Amino acid sequence: MNENAIKRLLSAVRSGRLSTEEAVARLRRLPFESLGFAHVDHHRAIRCGFPEVIFCPGKTAGQVRAIFSRLAAGGGNVLATRAAREVYEAVCRDHPRAEYHELARAITLRQGRAARPRGHIAVVSAGTSDLPVAEEARVTAEIMGQRVTTHYDVGVAGLHRLLAHGEAIQHARAIVVVAGMEGALASVVGGLVAVPVVAVPTSVGYGASFGGLAALLAMLNSCASNVSVVNIDNGFAGGYIAALINRQGLGMRD
Amino acid sequence: MNENAIKRLLSAVRSGRLSTEEAVARLRRLPFESLGFAHVDHHRAIRCGFPEVIFCPGKTAGQVRAIFSRLAAGGGNVLATRAAREVYEAVCRDHPRAEYHELARAITLRQGRAARPRGHIAVVSAGTSDLPVAEEARVTAEIMGQRVTTHYDVGVAGLHRLLAHGEAIQHARAIVVVAGMEGALASVVGGLVAVPVVAVPTSVGYGASFGGLAALLAMLNSCASNVSVVNIDNGFAGGYIAALINRQGLGMRD
Amino acid sequence: MNENAIKRLLSAVRSGRLSTEEAVARLRRLPFESLGFAHVDHHRAIRCGFPEVIFCPGKTAGQVRAIFSRLAAGGGNVLATRAAREVYEAVCRDHPRAEYHELARAITLRQGRAARPRGHIAVVSAGTSDLPVAEEARVTAEIMGQRVTTHYDVGVAGLHRLLAHGEAIQHARAIVVVAGMEGALASVVGGLVAVPVVAVPTSVGYGASFGGLAALLAMLNSCASNVSVVNIDNGFAGGYIAALINRQGLGMRD
Amino acid sequence: MNENAIKRLLSAVRSGRLSTEEAVARLRRLPFESLGFAHVDHHRAIRCGFPEVIFCPGKTAGQVRAIFSRLAAGGGNVLATRAAREVYEAVCRDHPRAEYHELARAITLRQGRAARPRGHIAVVSAGTSDLPVAEEARVTAEIMGQRVTTHYDVGVAGLHRLLAHGEAIQHARAIVVVAGMEGALASVVGGLVAVPVVAVPTSVGYGASFGGLAALLAMLNSCASNVSVVNIDNGFAGGYIAALINRQGLGMRD
Amino acid sequence: MNENAIKRLLSAVRSGRLSTEEAVARLRRLPFESLGFAHVDHHRAIRCGFPEVIFCPGKTAGQVRAIFSRLAAGGGNVLATRAAREVYEAVCRDHPRAEYHELARAITLRQGRAARPRGHIAVVSAGTSDLPVAEEARVTAEIMGQRVTTHYDVGVAGLHRLLAHGEAIQHARAIVVVAGMEGALASVVGGLVAVPVVAVPTSVGYGASFGGLAALLAMLNSCASNVSVVNIDNGFAGGYIAALINRQGLGMRD
Amino acid sequence: MNENAIKRLLSAVRSGRLSTEEAVARLRRLPFESLGFAHVDHHRAIRCGFPEVIFCPGKTAGQVRAIFSRLAAGGGNVLATRAAREVYEAVCRDHPRAEYHELARAITLRQGRAARPRGHIAVVSAGTSDLPVAEEARVTAEIMGQRVTTHYDVGVAGLHRLLAHGEAIQHARAIVVVAGMEGALASVVGGLVAVPVVAVPTSVGYGASFGGLAALLAMLNSCASNVSVVNIDNGFAGGYIAALINRQGLGMRD
Amino acid sequence: MNENAIKRLLSAVRSGRLSTEEAVARLRRLPFESLGFAHVDHHRAIRCGFPEVIFCPGKTAGQVRAIFSRLAAGGGNVLATRAAREVYEAVCRDHPRAEYHELARAITLRQGRAARPRGHIAVVSAGTSDLPVAEEARVTAEIMGQRVTTHYDVGVAGLHRLLAHGEAIQHARAIVVVAGMEGALASVVGGLVAVPVVAVPTSVGYGASFGGLAALLAMLNSCASNVSVVNIDNGFAGGYIAALINRQGLGMRD
Amino acid sequence: MNENAIKRLLSAVRSGRLSTEEAVARLRRLPFESLGFAHVDHHRAIRCGFPEVIFCPGKTAGQVRAIFSRLAAGGGNVLATRAAREVYEAVCRDHPRAEYHELARAITLRQGRAARPRGHIAVVSAGTSDLPVAEEARVTAEIMGQRVTTHYDVGVAGLHRLLAHGEAIQHARAIVVVAGMEGALASVVGGLVAVPVVAVPTSVGYGASFGGLAALLAMLNSCASNVSVVNIDNGFAGGYIAALINRQGLGMRD
Repeated sequence: MNENAIKRLLSAVRSGRLSTEEAVARLRRLPFESLGFAHVDHHRAIRCGFPEVIFCPGKTAGQVRAIFSRLAAGGGNVLATRAAREVYEAVCRDHPRAEYHELARAITLRQGRAARPRGHIAVVSAGTSDLPVAEEARVTAEIMGQRVTTHYDVGVAGLHRLLAHGEAIQHARAIVVVAGMEGALASVVGGLVAVPVVAVPTSVGYGASFGGLAALLAMLNSCASNVSVVNIDNGFAGGYIAALINRQGLGMRD
Repeated sequence: MNENAIKRLLSAVRSGRLSTEEAVARLRRLPFESLGFAHVDHHRAIRCGFPEVIFCPGKTAGQVRAIFSRLAAGGGNVLATRAAREVYEAVCRDHPRAEYHELARAITLRQGRAARPRGHIAVVSAGTSDLPVAEEARVTAEIMGQRVTTHYDVGVAGLHRLLAHGEAIQHARAIVVVAGMEGALASVVGGLVAVPVVAVPTSVGYGASFGGLAALLAMLNSCASNVSVVNIDNGFAGGYIAALINRQGLGMRD
Repeated sequence: MNENAIKRLLSAVRSGRLSTEEAVARLRRLPFESLGFAHVDHHRAIRCGFPEVIFCPGKTAGQVRAIFSRLAAGGGNVLATRAAREVYEAVCRDHPRAEYHELARAITLRQGRAARPRGHIAVVSAGTSDLPVAEEARVTAEIMGQRVTTHYDVGVAGLHRLLAHGEAIQHARAIVVVAGMEGALASVVGGLVAVPVVAVPTSVGYGASFGGLAALLAMLNSCASNVSVVNIDNGFAGGYIAALINRQGLGMRD
Repeated sequence: MNENAIKRLLSAVRSGRLSTEEAVARLRRLPFESLGFAHVDHHRAIRCGFPEVIFCPGKTAGQVRAIFSRLAAGGGNVLATRAAREVYEAVCRDHPRAEYHELARAITLRQGRAARPRGHIAVVSAGTSDLPVAEEARVTAEIMGQRVTTHYDVGVAGLHRLLAHGEAIQHARAIVVVAGMEGALASVVGGLVAVPVVAVPTSVGYGASFGGLAALLAMLNSCASNVSVVNIDNGFAGGYIAALINRQGLGMRD
Repeated sequence: MNENAIKRLLSAVRSGRLSTEEAVARLRRLPFESLGFAHVDHHRAIRCGFPEVIFCPGKTAGQVRAIFSRLAAGGGNVLATRAAREVYEAVCRDHPRAEYHELARAITLRQGRAARPRGHIAVVSAGTSDLPVAEEARVTAEIMGQRVTTHYDVGVAGLHRLLAHGEAIQHARAIVVVAGMEGALASVVGGLVAVPVVAVPTSVGYGASFGGLAALLAMLNSCASNVSVVNIDNGFAGGYIAALINRQGLGMRD
Repeated sequence: MNENAIKRLLSAVRSGRLSTEEAVARLRRLPFESLGFAHVDHHRAIRCGFPEVIFCPGKTAGQVRAIFSRLAAGGGNVLATRAAREVYEAVCRDHPRAEYHELARAITLRQGRAARPRGHIAVVSAGTSDLPVAEEARVTAEIMGQRVTTHYDVGVAGLHRLLAHGEAIQHARAIVVVAGMEGALASVVGGLVAVPVVAVPTSVGYGASFGGLAALLAMLNSCASNVSVVNIDNGFAGGYIAALINRQGLGMRD
Repeated sequence: MNENAIKRLLSAVRSGRLSTEEAVARLRRLPFESLGFAHVDHHRAIRCGFPEVIFCPGKTAGQVRAIFSRLAAGGGNVLATRAAREVYEAVCRDHPRAEYHELARAITLRQGRAARPRGHIAVVSAGTSDLPVAEEARVTAEIMGQRVTTHYDVGVAGLHRLLAHGEAIQHARAIVVVAGMEGALASVVGGLVAVPVVAVPTSVGYGASFGGLAALLAMLNSCASNVSVVNIDNGFAGGYIAALINRQGLGMRD
Repeated sequence: MNENAIKRLLSAVRSGRLSTEEAVARLRRLPFESLGFAHVDHHRAIRCGFPEVIFCPGKTAGQVRAIFSRLAAGGGNVLATRAAREVYEAVCRDHPRAEYHELARAITLRQGRAARPRGHIAVVSAGTSDLPVAEEARVTAEIMGQRVTTHYDVGVAGLHRLLAHGEAIQHARAIVVVAGMEGALASVVGGLVAVPVVAVPTSVGYGASFGGLAALLAMLNSCASNVSVVNIDNGFAGGYIAALINRQGLGMRD
């Protein structure tokens, strides 16, 4: 389309219908449009199993419903995060096959045939209160075509619980660690594996957790070199980045 | 130049030496280069009396000297901030007309004929320890072609000193207020005038000033609506923005 | 008026009706009143298209209604910010021509004939959640007699959206950038233009945005020299200062 | 009373009814009781026009009513702060002469004949939103027997308003300055007078006021040497300390 | 003087040598000068035994020497704070009677006959590391004509040490409490006495004292109502305000 | 059980039913299970009068009821913290002998015969608003088999109240100090006794207490060497650790 | 002694040599002295193998030497912390048997016959940079008569190192955990044992460790209930409190 | 080895030389050793082109030299970070083929034949002051066998510089973004690409950058979903994680 526009412009130059000067003037504004090329590439990559994402807070149920339908029309998977049940019910009227993930507060619509995932990613979380964030990570990665194993309630104060999951975790190709309070789980898991760990601090905790600041700082200071960190409670980013990491392996074959 | 490159490309298309497809491929990369157009505009505006700026910390005297010469070759004014005297001495070997502003720790080189400034800007500071920052603002604005009046040591604890400068301050077309400690001067000056005030918090103060945080927060919370704020100790930004504001008046005539 | 009072006092001295001593005593109290001169000037400037402003929070609908009427009686434009719809309805009984700006939560009353604006200012915002703050900036600038172009939802993660607005933004004479989260938009816009940018951080974001602190610090540390910053969510100050900046150009002609 | 207890003990020793050993044992516990002497002194001083104070939050209306009555039985003035109207109504059933101060959210009961106050203290506040805190300071000081002049809505952005109150403020023997936002008023008032200024930061402000932190830091960094600071929104402490300061003058006559 | 200037102006008006219009014009500038009246009052008050103060950091020995001499010429006491020994030696050449207070890092010059102090103030400090700040408070108060008792090394971890000083402390008319670490001393002393306590947090402590922040916050949150706070390590302000408080008693007699 | 599993494995090796290689493979996974041994030890220690603990927030009444019953089936004491009354009512249907501690918001079930406690621990608190946290500490320690003495409302501003409790406090074998505002009580109590003090900062306070930060920092900076600190409002941890400390004495006899 | 003073006073009352009134007056001052009783108890407890402690920073070598000798004269053990080698050399002239602990920067003098320690405490640290703090804890506990096992360089990123020390750690009667960076070690160790853990955050780390704040917050938010925390880098407090905890066991036999 | 030990133990059981009970007892301690299995796997993975890393600060040149030699003996690549030139010179005596990377302050020793890298990673940095951190990332990734393209000095204030590098950046399989000040570069790059971005905030900036806090918060709040963050100035972690991500692709083929 954009490409066509440029071709038409060039044809007009060639045929003499457009002066060189005028063409230069029009092309001046091109940067912004032609940057769209890159973006189209980007979008194409994303459509290969990667969903468009709607962040619901601050949008009405009607608005989400409308955006959801527009995205679904593209034929790819659709993900809406931080969605209340009412929002899901609105979306359902158009898309009865859409699913609601209660804990994760997410809506997904799976369309087309998923590529068979290679490898898997693991979502590991510390306490039961961290579940909503961990589930948001899981749902995000799955709708992006990933196979996900979950390892919940394996906080470091009862190390044996974590170690019992050790082998499964060690075979994952990327790991999301979700933890509040002191956030120590990221370092412990980071030390057990040889793949990238994406740490998601949660606002779980009271008093001096200062809304997740304690876990955030702990994770940033992890003595394990393979730990990087995303925003507090941002399970979506955790699942999204882990999926991108595993996808790198797939991409290599092309 | 960039424009010429595009013209050449278009000519090649018109003459058939270049296929439309190949031209599209080349133009894809254009956005980045053609954005240069905007930048050229930007630069042109800047050349109208506005200097190039070298931020010296982390650069050797030799590096500053080299950059300085390259900029000076352009024929415009040159400004180097946070420069030690040794750096000035290095620069001087090439540019004996360069001046060193001891307190402001700045080097300036004035070239060509300055446009006659219209209106003036005022630099107001609270205490003697704020002088280096205030002077950096003054030197910056002057090398940008502004007329600057200075009103130093007029802190709010001795309000009469400030009020004695009141009329002069009220006639300025933009005001830089430099203050550490409680930073109250920005609000008081802001309330006295009807023009934009650019507030520069300084790290002057001890104990609970926390390196200028107290003044910074105070200025951001100013009850005067015409106060905006730049980084702690950033006298350069203060002078630069005030000059831009006054320049708006000049620009109107075009 | 004040001037008249002084003239009467001086006449009384001249005619011998008032002793020199008594006159001195009365004049002692003058500073405060005569400072009023400056203030009258200030007010006069403001009446030239600049509204009085009512900050509504903490005031009852009745109180706002009363103040609004008193200000409207002066014949100038009136602006009330952070106003609930109920407040608007109260004001409407007296001023049926007052307008309510839903998103901006502002009430305006336009009176008299506006001066034809020269130039325009641009309000640029990052995400849809930043709209209320951006709209407050727009409404403020417009009631101050400015022409405003808006460029919403042009966050840096999709740079092409911003660049598509590039030319329009580059022609503005002052720019208000409204952004939450990482606040990067201020730097990017600042680098594209040669005029002052007033950055308004918003409290939009979650987790480690700490109520807008992240955006605030980012904007204060902008690597673009033409960016100054106002308080978090303070769209009013953004619009107000941008209007003052553009007005500098108008003032030059006098 | 305590003194009597000691006298009785000593008499018992003298008369041989109590052994020296037993007396030593009892006296061991005395420190705590005899520290009461100081406390009695303290209380005595307080009874000279200084009220007992009930901090209401976290107490039921019934509890406040009971404590109020017990204190009132002592014959002195009584003050209850942060009291909801319901609490006042409960108290009123026992003490119909008790007064409710709406803005200050305080209940006072004036009993006995107040000493004629000498000198006065001034309560100065910046904006209308600071009124509840300023009124708490005023009510506290008055029930402690002080004469109080109030100077409200004299924020620094309109300096002439403050200066118009200058003379009255300069005659006060202690000054309470109540201000939120940038808290600059404390420094400006501090610079105008030669008496102690007790600064009360308020949580008024938005965004980067961080719940009063901006004003608090500004006041602690005041460039005026006569400013000391109490907790955010603590109008009670402001009024209390100002009253203590003025009382020092009265005490001198004894 | 200023008064004379006004009288001359009025005489000129009366005699017809000056037109009313011209007089109005001149009087417009008066506010700032006539505010000097208040300032003169202020200065007069200060001369009654209160020194001029030189804050030395950032000034050369030569500059301090020059300012010191100018102030000394006024005949009053002189105080220079945060002065290195070299500075003292420079001052000494002109004023051999000047004293250097090693621990307090202060220079004083006592001139004229001091008024006999009434009452006394107490300086109480927690640990030996707090001594420089405590001594600065003492020296400041003494040069302001106060009698000072000192109670050092009476931290709350050994309460008996503090209580052994109890009586002496209780008789003071104002108390300066200097403490680092947890700053608990301010509350404990505040609870023992019925006079104003000026608390000076110090930067003494390590780790989580965060340069005095811990003590500062503790003092601001004191459960004793008579405690107000100044900046970290600001012994000068502590002594200054305590002296002002005690002076209130003296002032009453006038 | 785990032990039995290992014995069975070893028997199978001995009998030749399992190859050495296979046994090694199975034992590889053992670490995680055999770490359970330590945990069993741990559990055994805990069963000696130490309860299992349910942290209720984020769990439904039904969930707590189910967990509670499962734990109660073990025969030991059970503790549920931060429990609303509705939760208690749910639990009561299964366990009519369970008790609800209103202020502490805790549910306890006492089963079996408690060991006779040796020594006692003291819970000391500053103000009435600290009671819920102090009571949580008391209830926790008691269900862990401790004898607890409570000393409430003994804040440092009225030192005599604390000292009146001095002897009782000095005989405790571990002390929990609960305080908000400036948290000074921990240091004062720490200085009076020779046993470990566990300090619990509370979020009680307003303004600059910043949700308990002031008390937290003060306690961490205590000048008394025997004070350690737990999270803000974490009365449970305070009581738990104090109980562990006193249990050390009991353990010595084994 | 104090007791004798009281007996003498009472005898004087009994014999009529002292009036009741005069005795009351003298007893008024007693609280402070008689509180000394408690303190004597306190001191007695401490002499049972617990050293006096000198905190060296801010003291000259000569001052430390003098204090050291005075304390040594009492016959007990002596500990000086944060001592430079020069200080040790000064002390050595008087006490050639004093030892210097290079890493811990501590001086100890062991006098008399140590009681045979019962049980032991463990000092566990994360990285080699934490050693000085860990050693300070060890030296402190040993001079207090404890047997100490050390487990260094067992950070959580290599969990197997920690687990290899598991049994030894599990037999300790109190544990000091020293860790910087993310401080996760405290939670992991806390979960492995059933005794109190005293966590010492260190300032080791860079960037967002903010001088130990990250580790401090992590430890305060530990999900293990048996962890309490002391100040950053305060190895002394860690060792001191662990020793007090273990001593509780010894005390039980008395 | 460990495996052999278990085999020997099992053989001893099978042969009857060891009782089942004793074997159980020995196996109890196994977890810690057998966890070593996992670690061996971990190490094996690392040997595949990944270096051992020495963090130099706090180690003497001699210590680094010794550790370096021990690691080099293993035959793999070796990396030492934050190394002064003196350290390099010490290492060089043993390993003349070791290289020193001046800007990155790193020492590397390349041994054996590197696997041919597949794909490449990009290191993008904002300003010249960020170079040392960016170079540390590059050197780390290269010694781990990666091909690295660098894109320095492409800060967002001059967007065209970044866009000129756009295509090269878009082809990388993982990207490290290094930026101080407002850290906006991470979001802008994140929005241009479809692969994971590891953001490294630097402490470059002044005033309100608060040692890199501003950039850190900005990056954590990035509106681009593919951005995760490591500690301030931690170029090593940036390069390490990017290498791990790209390695995922290689691993897929096994």
